[in-house]
Amino acid sequence: METTNTKAFGNPSAEKPLENMTIQRRRATPHDVEIDILYCGVCHSDVHQARNEWHNTIYPCVPGHEIIGRVTAIGNHVKKFKVGQMVGVGCMVDSCRECEPCKNDLEQFCESFPTFSYNGPDKHLGGHTFGGYSENITVDESFVLRIPENLDLAAAAPLLCAGITTYSPLKKWKAGPGKKVGVVGIGGLGHMAIKIAKAMGATVTAFTTSPAKTEEAKRLGADQIIISKDEEAMANIYKSFDLIIDAVAAPHDVNVYLNALKLDGAMVMVGLPEVVDVAPFNLVLPRRIFTGSLIGGIAETQEMLDFCGAHNITADIEMINMADINDAYERMLKSDVRYRFVIDMTSLKA
Amino acid sequence: METTNTKAFGNPSAEKPLENMTIQRRRATPHDVEIDILYCGVCHSDVHQARNEWHNTIYPCVPGHEIIGRVTAIGNHVKKFKVGQMVGVGCMVDSCRECEPCKNDLEQFCESFPTFSYNGPDKHLGGHTFGGYSENITVDESFVLRIPENLDLAAAAPLLCAGITTYSPLKKWKAGPGKKVGVVGIGGLGHMAIKIAKAMGATVTAFTTSPAKTEEAKRLGADQIIISKDEEAMANIYKSFDLIIDAVAAPHDVNVYLNALKLDGAMVMVGLPEVVDVAPFNLVLPRRIFTGSLIGGIAETQEMLDFCGAHNITADIEMINMADINDAYERMLKSDVRYRFVIDMTSLKA
Repeated sequence: METTNTKAFGNPSAEKPLENMTIQRRRATPHDVEIDILYCGVCHSDVHQARNEWHNTIYPCVPGHEIIGRVTAIGNHVKKFKVGQMVGVGCMVDSCRECEPCKNDLEQFCESFPTFSYNGPDKHLGGHTFGGYSENITVDESFVLRIPENLDLAAAAPLLCAGITTYSPLKKWKAGPGKKVGVVGIGGLGHMAIKIAKAMGATVTAFTTSPAKTEEAKRLGADQIIISKDEEAMANIYKSFDLIIDAVAAPHDVNVYLNALKLDGAMVMVGLPEVVDVAPFNLVLPRRIFTGSLIGGIAETQEMLDFCGAHNITADIEMINMADINDAYERMLKSDVRYRFVIDMTSLKA
Repeated sequence: METTNTKAFGNPSAEKPLENMTIQRRRATPHDVEIDILYCGVCHSDVHQARNEWHNTIYPCVPGHEIIGRVTAIGNHVKKFKVGQMVGVGCMVDSCRECEPCKNDLEQFCESFPTFSYNGPDKHLGGHTFGGYSENITVDESFVLRIPENLDLAAAAPLLCAGITTYSPLKKWKAGPGKKVGVVGIGGLGHMAIKIAKAMGATVTAFTTSPAKTEEAKRLGADQIIISKDEEAMANIYKSFDLIIDAVAAPHDVNVYLNALKLDGAMVMVGLPEVVDVAPFNLVLPRRIFTGSLIGGIAETQEMLDFCGAHNITADIEMINMADINDAYERMLKSDVRYRFVIDMTSLKA
């Protein structure tokens, strides 16, 4: 199989910082799209994977799954994309396409596991997949997304992970007019949840531990901001929410939010603390749902991008150069970013 | 308001055992039904309430909310019941009837709290309500249930709490043909869940810590029995259940059951340990629901009774005399009952 040498930035091992490296990309096979990467968002998952915190990282590791770029070549069977078109690639680059979840547009739950954009098995070249911290990427057209033309390309990159991760549960649990939606944690995921829930027509309350974020949360679209350390304010919200999106990855008390749900309300975890204490009584009186959500399928990701195009929604980003990535990881771990780093990939190519 | 002296059996205080006492019952007001109690099931809640384990018990406390009896008098506006008819009363004897949940046949979630059959505020006589460990009870016809004629009356008593508590989530989460349903814990609630899920057409797996219950679980209708301490068997059920009803009140690991759910499967707590550890990852990959359920509304309770009539389902019971109740509580706490004690109320009247 024909390949090209591609500049990338990745970790040679768990202990070492990210550095310049060269990887191989396949030339487009009949159903493939070759993409010149312009921007790549920086997700918390990138740090976890780069540092082997999930104990499954294969090295070298090239992270990045919020990819925006320009089509530079297509295979001869590609129908959906043309050379020159702006496209996106998210967390997945393939799946079995035959199992029930795949047939139901839920490739993220593929029975054989989806092929993640990095650290997944590379069916074409063997070895493992490399993500978006690189000059280019080659992806089957079925896993490539159209980017609405009106969106700022750099700020659209985080939609590919942070956007779909919050859009999917907001859609599934019916955020919309007349619904009261809470968003816990105003970070990369949370700030997208506020924007999208508001655009869906819901009344949005942002929960934050940080009084300093009050004005920002309003600017993002929140109708109400509650400082979660304010016990009186928290007591006043008993049984008042239809839906709460919990985007906090650190350990925290979920029962205060479960108690804020109405009868048959749902709380959805999109941040992933290792374990949380749940009082079953809070799921019973009244009846409530505690659940989670994982990115979204390809069709739903396209739907989300089109929705964001129609509502002119992108992420709030801070642009960095590729060489800044190790510092950016440290700042992200301190929540010192509003609200997503995006790498200007020209800085890798220079 | 006209009242009658009524023999009852209850706790004078948290520290004392149940004993004979006399309570007042109102004579039927226009919408009331007077019921001569024939049988009363013994629920774990009775013990919790009698012993003030929920820290809200008002004494004297007369427990009992699985009540079967015969109508002896009706108010002049009563339309649904006739003197001589066999009827049931469950956990509730009234609610506000005006809030959203009440209007939606979810009286158990009444915004003003339903009036529970015991330890609730008595709107008619003042003071608090007294339950079914008594000769008779007077209840508004809206909270009285018809008992199918083909059912054994004593064995039907536990349907009023254990039956509806398991029927409601099985119905809500669509147990039926082609669905794989797990039931955790084969006790008062669990044995009803097995019978009802089987009658709904589901394939039923019973989980128990006790190998001795294997044959019994089969007799109750389980298609498969898994000893929950068998790690290999537990590992083999990954992602295989549509619905799991967890009827265990003691602290236990719920993550092994969450992991046994398919994509979008639901696990429903009907036993109520104080707190359980949940790994959010198990709610995310694949997406799953953790929820609870509390008895059921009056219309759904009637539906459950009619369903049990149509499928000839009753509880497996051990009949006791009223004077045996203190011993029965001790045995119940040791799970030494298969599967529900029912008090023969003639023993109180004698």
